[in-house]
Amino acid sequence: MARSYTLAELAQCSGAQLRGDGDCIIQGVESLNGAGSGQISFFNNRKYRKYLADTAASAVILRPEDAADCPCNALLTDNPYLVWAKITQCFAEQSHQESGVHAAAVVDARAEVSHSASIAAGSVVGEGAKIGADVRVGPNCVIGRNVTLGRGTHLVASVTLLDGVRLGEDCLVHPGAVIGSDGFGLANDGGRWEKVAQLGSVSIGNRVEIGANTTIDRGAIHDTIIADGVKLDNQIQVAHNVEIGENTAIAACTGISGSTRIGAGCTLAGGVGVVGHIELADGVHVSGASVVSRSLKEPGVYTGGVLAMPHKTWQKNIARIKQLDDMARRLRKLEKMLEKSLEEES
Amino acid sequence: MARSYTLAELAQCSGAQLRGDGDCIIQGVESLNGAGSGQISFFNNRKYRKYLADTAASAVILRPEDAADCPCNALLTDNPYLVWAKITQCFAEQSHQESGVHAAAVVDARAEVSHSASIAAGSVVGEGAKIGADVRVGPNCVIGRNVTLGRGTHLVASVTLLDGVRLGEDCLVHPGAVIGSDGFGLANDGGRWEKVAQLGSVSIGNRVEIGANTTIDRGAIHDTIIADGVKLDNQIQVAHNVEIGENTAIAACTGISGSTRIGAGCTLAGGVGVVGHIELADGVHVSGASVVSRSLKEPGVYTGGVLAMPHKTWQKNIARIKQLDDMARRLRKLEKMLEKSLEEES
Amino acid sequence: MARSYTLAELAQCSGAQLRGDGDCIIQGVESLNGAGSGQISFFNNRKYRKYLADTAASAVILRPEDAADCPCNALLTDNPYLVWAKITQCFAEQSHQESGVHAAAVVDARAEVSHSASIAAGSVVGEGAKIGADVRVGPNCVIGRNVTLGRGTHLVASVTLLDGVRLGEDCLVHPGAVIGSDGFGLANDGGRWEKVAQLGSVSIGNRVEIGANTTIDRGAIHDTIIADGVKLDNQIQVAHNVEIGENTAIAACTGISGSTRIGAGCTLAGGVGVVGHIELADGVHVSGASVVSRSLKEPGVYTGGVLAMPHKTWQKNIARIKQLDDMARRLRKLEKMLEKSLEEES
Repeated sequence: MARSYTLAELAQCSGAQLRGDGDCIIQGVESLNGAGSGQISFFNNRKYRKYLADTAASAVILRPEDAADCPCNALLTDNPYLVWAKITQCFAEQSHQESGVHAAAVVDARAEVSHSASIAAGSVVGEGAKIGADVRVGPNCVIGRNVTLGRGTHLVASVTLLDGVRLGEDCLVHPGAVIGSDGFGLANDGGRWEKVAQLGSVSIGNRVEIGANTTIDRGAIHDTIIADGVKLDNQIQVAHNVEIGENTAIAACTGISGSTRIGAGCTLAGGVGVVGHIELADGVHVSGASVVSRSLKEPGVYTGGVLAMPHKTWQKNIARIKQLDDMARRLRKLEKMLEKSLEEES
Repeated sequence: MARSYTLAELAQCSGAQLRGDGDCIIQGVESLNGAGSGQISFFNNRKYRKYLADTAASAVILRPEDAADCPCNALLTDNPYLVWAKITQCFAEQSHQESGVHAAAVVDARAEVSHSASIAAGSVVGEGAKIGADVRVGPNCVIGRNVTLGRGTHLVASVTLLDGVRLGEDCLVHPGAVIGSDGFGLANDGGRWEKVAQLGSVSIGNRVEIGANTTIDRGAIHDTIIADGVKLDNQIQVAHNVEIGENTAIAACTGISGSTRIGAGCTLAGGVGVVGHIELADGVHVSGASVVSRSLKEPGVYTGGVLAMPHKTWQKNIARIKQLDDMARRLRKLEKMLEKSLEEES
Repeated sequence: MARSYTLAELAQCSGAQLRGDGDCIIQGVESLNGAGSGQISFFNNRKYRKYLADTAASAVILRPEDAADCPCNALLTDNPYLVWAKITQCFAEQSHQESGVHAAAVVDARAEVSHSASIAAGSVVGEGAKIGADVRVGPNCVIGRNVTLGRGTHLVASVTLLDGVRLGEDCLVHPGAVIGSDGFGLANDGGRWEKVAQLGSVSIGNRVEIGANTTIDRGAIHDTIIADGVKLDNQIQVAHNVEIGENTAIAACTGISGSTRIGAGCTLAGGVGVVGHIELADGVHVSGASVVSRSLKEPGVYTGGVLAMPHKTWQKNIARIKQLDDMARRLRKLEKMLEKSLEEES
């Protein structure tokens, strides 16, 4: 039973400017070419202009300069995707998890759980944990000793937070995420490895989202730090002592090695690797599957790798990589010979 | 207590042609060079021909054209590995999980669970879930609201399926898999990120296998779609709105970005990355660790990357990559100089 | 309430040589430039020499040859990082998990659990499992049938061990790890995939550490084998039939394909990919994000890949990769022309 809204209500909640019939009832969201009556869509990319003229949507979110091309009601804004984001939230189903501790959850007597928080079946909460107001802990989570969860934070299900981990307010953590596992610290003892105890924890700010099966290790001495507004996709690995700055967004399957500092407002695309003990400045953007091996002190876009091509093309050319240095030297030698020969001629 | 079979029984269950003693008792499977009496092996790759002549196996699965080289009983077939697959299944231990809901499982009163299904200890089933006949849910799984599991599907253990996810019949999902987590949809609001609610779900066909710690995100508007017969290995990331065609098989650690469509009958080897919003045709095969950055409209094999070599070789040559364009221009210039000089000479 | 120690006690437990006041009380560990009174630090890398002279630490672990530069008490050793590792362990908080089976754990009546072992809430232990002395199983773990855990092994939380998996003594397994999931074995049957049953298990030695969300598949016929002292970081994939030799350490996000053998004393950095059916000799070291495509029979360092650079530099140069073979041929042609022309001149 999803809710429905008038277009005027959606304009108000999203901050967009209404053009047309504010009483029009909107029951859902849809893409431009799939939308029908009662649905709202958005137009953000002129590549899809052909779909705008023909849309059967009841309303479209778009920029004022595109309004003339819109055949129906409109919500006008300079940032259509942002308005779209806010309106999708209106149509998201609200969770029904009731507040309180489920009979099949196990909460240590020395934990503090807000009366407005909810702990679902199968979750285990350790000694000294502090669960704030309106926190929702889904089924089968593990919350270690002395973990702190700020107001409104939501652990969807099957999340594991180990001892001492702190999350701020309004965080969202997806299933399978593990926060506070030991960093990978080893000292070599004549071939055998001796464990360096990981004595720090993980400190996470407000409005942080952490994807499914993402892992964030505790720091060796101090905390691994994730600042406010950071968004981490699925299957990301954040090693010990890493710091990630405010509002940085990182796509799936990226790994960040120990003690590296990522600035604020960065984006790392999927499958990126970042070596340890380096710094990425604010505003660095790394393309998918690139490997960052040294500090990037200037904002900008960075890319690496050799992309897929037909196998035969790859095979023929990539074999030459091992000859590159030789080729460069031979090329230089030819140039010198020709320079000399030209000199002699003149 | 694994079962034993006569060779005639194995011929019948696997569809192979018996040569030799059908009453021979087979108690297990083994490789050609490790096998002894009572064991069956297979010969599929002529690289291992030396092991065939000397095998002590009681029977070997092989092609008719190789039968003359086989010193023992044989099962003849044009597809030895397929017959091997079927026979290994005969020797797999059957699960003992009894039907019914374990006393330590928590099933919402509004869920529908078939009488022949089993729900193990520690699993939590939400409101409106429909658990079909002969479904087995192993320990510590989470099954969200309105999830549908078709007949014979098996969640091994510690699997998390979120609200509205649908799996068909005879699927097999390994531990740590998360299906239906939010897609990574974010709109930028002057530096801060606003969440795009993910209103779709995940729709999975029949006979789909999903590996350990693999994640499949729910779609933004519509469903993420995994067709019949798809096989996903461990630690794969499937982003929102992705569609994967029938019988495509994807090896571990591969990531597929949002809204990409993978055709039917494709194979992606391990560690592949695929960018978003592209299409791979039916019958595309991507080599291990390759990054696919644009649509591949023709079937075939695609490869990228620079493989590992001794570090000094790599270091010397790879530094030249940044000079490649310069080298190409200088080479062209030399060619022109020589052409001109030859013209002048003639 | 972390413990405190005299410096003499720390010297003794770590095997270092005391210089200075053995009665000095040490309450914690800190980096050289962050340390204050009551803290011990270490000096291992001469790059940080400037911090040594100014440190306010009460004691520093360092080499005898650096002792003259140390302004405070010292622990002298030829391996400062090893001594540091041992001392961090002194300051790690001891787990408080009480022995015995928690009321909210589910242990099959046919499992054997040592009296000194502990099984936390939400964990499920199957038939025939053998849980050794001093084993700690944290919350929400799944331990399959006939699993064996040796003395002192610790499953932190949310670990899944499937049927027949064996871990030795003093292992440490982090949350989300899955051990014993099916290997990815498939036979093609005219386009459809037939499963090859995975009949082996996983055999793990003593003192093995396994990181968060790491997956280790069971072998097809025999066991996947992890030898004594192996250290695996987070999100590593170990496919079926793999063997990893003693004391090899592997960093996060690395994937090892089926039937590959990694030697002893190897290190694989983060994000490495190793193809199947190859062998890495003892003492092989693979750099981060490198892809190993063939056997490495000699110890040494191996590297691959094209690292990230400014996007425009990458774009301009990488396009030339597909011309490399052509460039090499044209270069050779020019050389021949010049050789010939020189010959003619002489």
